[in-house]
Amino acid sequence: MRAYRFRDYASLDSLQLGEEASAVPQRGEVLVGVRAVALNYRDIAMLRNRYPHRSKIGLIPCSDAAGEILAVGPDVTAFAARDRVISTFHPRWFGGEMPSTAATDGYGSERDGWLTESKLVSQEAVVRMPRGLSFEEAATLPCAGLTAWTALSGARPVRAGHTVLTLGSGGVSIFALQLAKACGARVIATTSSAEKAERLRALGADEVVNYRSCREWGEEVRALTAGRGVDRVVEVGGPATLKQSLRAVARGGEVVLIGFLSSDDPGIGYFELKQTVASIRSITVGDRAGLQEVVRVIESTGIRPIIDQVFPFENARAAFERLESGTHIGKVVIRCDATQPGHAP
Amino acid sequence: MRAYRFRDYASLDSLQLGEEASAVPQRGEVLVGVRAVALNYRDIAMLRNRYPHRSKIGLIPCSDAAGEILAVGPDVTAFAARDRVISTFHPRWFGGEMPSTAATDGYGSERDGWLTESKLVSQEAVVRMPRGLSFEEAATLPCAGLTAWTALSGARPVRAGHTVLTLGSGGVSIFALQLAKACGARVIATTSSAEKAERLRALGADEVVNYRSCREWGEEVRALTAGRGVDRVVEVGGPATLKQSLRAVARGGEVVLIGFLSSDDPGIGYFELKQTVASIRSITVGDRAGLQEVVRVIESTGIRPIIDQVFPFENARAAFERLESGTHIGKVVIRCDATQPGHAP
Amino acid sequence: MRAYRFRDYASLDSLQLGEEASAVPQRGEVLVGVRAVALNYRDIAMLRNRYPHRSKIGLIPCSDAAGEILAVGPDVTAFAARDRVISTFHPRWFGGEMPSTAATDGYGSERDGWLTESKLVSQEAVVRMPRGLSFEEAATLPCAGLTAWTALSGARPVRAGHTVLTLGSGGVSIFALQLAKACGARVIATTSSAEKAERLRALGADEVVNYRSCREWGEEVRALTAGRGVDRVVEVGGPATLKQSLRAVARGGEVVLIGFLSSDDPGIGYFELKQTVASIRSITVGDRAGLQEVVRVIESTGIRPIIDQVFPFENARAAFERLESGTHIGKVVIRCDATQPGHAP
Amino acid sequence: MRAYRFRDYASLDSLQLGEEASAVPQRGEVLVGVRAVALNYRDIAMLRNRYPHRSKIGLIPCSDAAGEILAVGPDVTAFAARDRVISTFHPRWFGGEMPSTAATDGYGSERDGWLTESKLVSQEAVVRMPRGLSFEEAATLPCAGLTAWTALSGARPVRAGHTVLTLGSGGVSIFALQLAKACGARVIATTSSAEKAERLRALGADEVVNYRSCREWGEEVRALTAGRGVDRVVEVGGPATLKQSLRAVARGGEVVLIGFLSSDDPGIGYFELKQTVASIRSITVGDRAGLQEVVRVIESTGIRPIIDQVFPFENARAAFERLESGTHIGKVVIRCDATQPGHAP
Repeated sequence: MRAYRFRDYASLDSLQLGEEASAVPQRGEVLVGVRAVALNYRDIAMLRNRYPHRSKIGLIPCSDAAGEILAVGPDVTAFAARDRVISTFHPRWFGGEMPSTAATDGYGSERDGWLTESKLVSQEAVVRMPRGLSFEEAATLPCAGLTAWTALSGARPVRAGHTVLTLGSGGVSIFALQLAKACGARVIATTSSAEKAERLRALGADEVVNYRSCREWGEEVRALTAGRGVDRVVEVGGPATLKQSLRAVARGGEVVLIGFLSSDDPGIGYFELKQTVASIRSITVGDRAGLQEVVRVIESTGIRPIIDQVFPFENARAAFERLESGTHIGKVVIRCDATQPGHAP
Repeated sequence: MRAYRFRDYASLDSLQLGEEASAVPQRGEVLVGVRAVALNYRDIAMLRNRYPHRSKIGLIPCSDAAGEILAVGPDVTAFAARDRVISTFHPRWFGGEMPSTAATDGYGSERDGWLTESKLVSQEAVVRMPRGLSFEEAATLPCAGLTAWTALSGARPVRAGHTVLTLGSGGVSIFALQLAKACGARVIATTSSAEKAERLRALGADEVVNYRSCREWGEEVRALTAGRGVDRVVEVGGPATLKQSLRAVARGGEVVLIGFLSSDDPGIGYFELKQTVASIRSITVGDRAGLQEVVRVIESTGIRPIIDQVFPFENARAAFERLESGTHIGKVVIRCDATQPGHAP
Repeated sequence: MRAYRFRDYASLDSLQLGEEASAVPQRGEVLVGVRAVALNYRDIAMLRNRYPHRSKIGLIPCSDAAGEILAVGPDVTAFAARDRVISTFHPRWFGGEMPSTAATDGYGSERDGWLTESKLVSQEAVVRMPRGLSFEEAATLPCAGLTAWTALSGARPVRAGHTVLTLGSGGVSIFALQLAKACGARVIATTSSAEKAERLRALGADEVVNYRSCREWGEEVRALTAGRGVDRVVEVGGPATLKQSLRAVARGGEVVLIGFLSSDDPGIGYFELKQTVASIRSITVGDRAGLQEVVRVIESTGIRPIIDQVFPFENARAAFERLESGTHIGKVVIRCDATQPGHAP
Repeated sequence: MRAYRFRDYASLDSLQLGEEASAVPQRGEVLVGVRAVALNYRDIAMLRNRYPHRSKIGLIPCSDAAGEILAVGPDVTAFAARDRVISTFHPRWFGGEMPSTAATDGYGSERDGWLTESKLVSQEAVVRMPRGLSFEEAATLPCAGLTAWTALSGARPVRAGHTVLTLGSGGVSIFALQLAKACGARVIATTSSAEKAERLRALGADEVVNYRSCREWGEEVRALTAGRGVDRVVEVGGPATLKQSLRAVARGGEVVLIGFLSSDDPGIGYFELKQTVASIRSITVGDRAGLQEVVRVIESTGIRPIIDQVFPFENARAAFERLESGTHIGKVVIRCDATQPGHAP
């Protein structure tokens, strides 16, 4: 079977495809035939050596995949061959407190990831794929889908009656928009162009604010809530947008910190935080129980993940270039056909 | 101004309209011009002397009303004249633990209720009416709307990904259907006729089970969830239906006890409860903070309460008869026009 | 290495010790040298064929153990040799919704249990043992300790200001007493003798009610709360006690169903449930995230599990007899010395 | 009856005692004979014109009081004459979302406060005083006690197994220490002197860190948790301490923002927030339901509020001076004897 590894941080040329030995599942393990891999901004950041946790040269990249079980080891009770599964971002964070091993468990950053034709993992490290989705769609859930759900959940879950603010058209933001609408919330989205605004409205956004034409968009968003503010901000922007997000949030609301898109850090004033009478919550994707909820929500609501473009496995590099261009709306996905029904794995 | 009082338990003839003295708001009080009153099953039960807490002869009946502020007393900061408001079912249960006075605070059972042209209450005993509703629609919220919301809320709020079971076509059940759909849940409803099934589907029910043709409807509902069971049952039926509801509920799910429609009580086996690995929660309407949430949810989602029929104030008796007939779908409402703009209160 | 298996349901004679082959950990697995096993009522019920889920003849019994890691397989990141661990009751219920495989995952009922000198499991099926406890004490946590914690936790965790009712002197009840006190709650305990009452008071019970001398002990408990009722009942008794527990619970409180000590089932009236305005929650032990919380709570509060008596591995039968006698207070434990430091495993 | 008003912001000389007209309770109102008033830092800040919301010249200051009901108006069902009560900080925030009127409801900042011999309020604006406390002790609860409780509560309540960090020896911090211990948490406190450290240990602090001798006390606190960090920080310091608090907090933990003791604001870096994988929650005292919980907790646990010093009503100025000195430990209280039993009100 074949897999990609990145050999240095110099350029996308470092992403190289090679033949690797196949593996046989031991007790409790499953061999997954990878059918689709979805890219996240962190995958680019790692190749570019911009990720906060320095990634290791030589790893197989990518954290998010969908596939089907090719073989199971002894004592596997959760899955059988041909079952469809998706990967978990934190393969050993099942629920409750994040384990201390989480930082060294990251696929594609600390250990080999999923940009490979097949992969051997513990049966606890995958969950069943939602019915009704293609592999390409399902591959988008482990990081972007779960991150959005974690942001909308937590101790005070977003529901009907709430207003949610999403920022831009990246993978997490579009999932947040879809999931927030599915939960009955009103959604206000920010964007930079009339064209993207149109797309966001088509996806369900009740209001769209152009952050280019309205620099004080935090106040604009607040005005759209009759001065009350929004209940939740899915803050993917980072230092560049937090100040406005804090202006937009209602008393008792919550700004969920996800992003690190910008790297300059002007800092936040203490009184800007204090006077919100709101919360800020920093998250990191979410746990397996959360991903299982996402699967149920997707099945129950019929949400279809928004895919920007699908690239063949052989041209994975083009997928990274697409993501890097910043012009995508939704997720960039790599299709892997080696394990199609009929193929010998 | 005029008000109804019920003089004995003999028949609906005991409901008599009479002239009463008007009142002037003291400090912190508001005078509400009643515009609509919604009936609940308890209002009939009280007149028929079938209510668990024996009601007092001579009271003004009814707990649920919408109206507009005619005058405010000194130091009222929450409302001004012409503001539109709805009543609270438990006028002194604001949030947190139910106060010990709740049992003696009930409008229409322990103290004078709202079937009157105007009423004087503390500013804390009303909340603002949702924008976009008529008085008739808004009057349905204080008991039926809030009860349904309380049932769908609590420590584990119903959300997208959940399945909710509602029973029949009464006021609480239809609100539960509408609110559960607004929260993104899948809804299974039970009913007794194809005609009502059609109506429930039109209101958003994903599945309808006929409990007449399918006596073991608990199993039928479970089958509709691929054997997993429903996350929430809004149990308005009482002893007659609880056994089936317990069969329908998922592990970790919740059956919310609301009803007392039937009076014979075959009892529930301990192991029927135990083996559910689920919860049963008995509720009584809800608190003011919950009603304020209902107002926001109604405004935000555009839900319109389902009204069966509206009767004029002068013919309130017909409204009681309609409710007693059991053929209604949605709420039975009495309109009160005495305080229309232009009328002297 | 040696292990017990039960060969039929006829008598405790069926519990037979035999030599078995040792195993070698595969990837992700750990070999645990068992140092102590704690008995639960279910272990007796299974041998006596009184367990709701019929157990399989020939299994190694028991679900709860403490031990130390003898060897780890490849890619085990959570543990190293000599680490001390305890078992999990539901080895694949990590958090979130209980998996559908839970019913077939039970140690000692559906698969081989822990009454063995060593056992091979996934690294995900054990958690680290609390510092400061002996193996005998730690072995009591996976079922009894976690069940008590689950009962006191949930969506509305027991805290200072709450009152908790515990029933009798069994393992779960004593843990519930200790943990509730550690959480700052007031505890009322029931018992059948002055001697046990003394012991319960020494363990921290604020009040003890004798259910023999006071048949309507539900009312007695309520009286001890000035009529308000208790916030939580840890209901281990089952059908025989539920009626009284429902009288003791406060509005908004919760009765947690754990027990099946009695088998006759007089049933509960619907209105007995309804009028409580409280909740009933049926639980089954708890998930791994909960057990990790228990470990932290034990370490942080210094709680020492109460052990009735410790029996040597060679005389496991005496431990079962002790439990069956019903005269124990706290947990009955079997010590296993085969894997002591210095012993070859 | 007599009351204090502050006539300008120039100095404490502006605090002047004068005779005022007595009032008679209207419907739903109670007349409270004030027996004790507790000072908060905000009371000084207001007199010094350093409060964020500019206070109004001429008001009766102070928000926190205990007293007894002297008379009740018609239709008061919650209280009777001679009942003992405490004030609520936000008199119209009962539960749920903070009302929009909260900002203009503040006693002693926006409306007349409690530094008076008697005061007329709605029955909804007071709660019953805990049994077992003196008036002086009870007067400390409405702001400092409730603020500490709100900080330890919220969506993820502090419990046994958690570690709480408190800062210094002010009123809120000492309540937080006492309440966190009552909830079973481990408490780490910071202080500036060995003498205060001794006092904090006597009050239950498990560990005390001297922030003078250890400038990087955030790391020191984290080290005391074996690197895991604390679950909750009761952050009363403000901009001067937040940076260290963020270093001390565990992943998944929460820093609760209360303070504004310092006014220079160096700001917080975005990545300092992001990398915590924790939450920051800004609060403002709490609602009436929370204060009722505090009353139950105080009664149930036997906590006695820590009073620094009690001053007579006639010498209220000395109390303000004591608070301003910053040398107090616990609360500064003013006693008011005019309404003692036997006195004519």
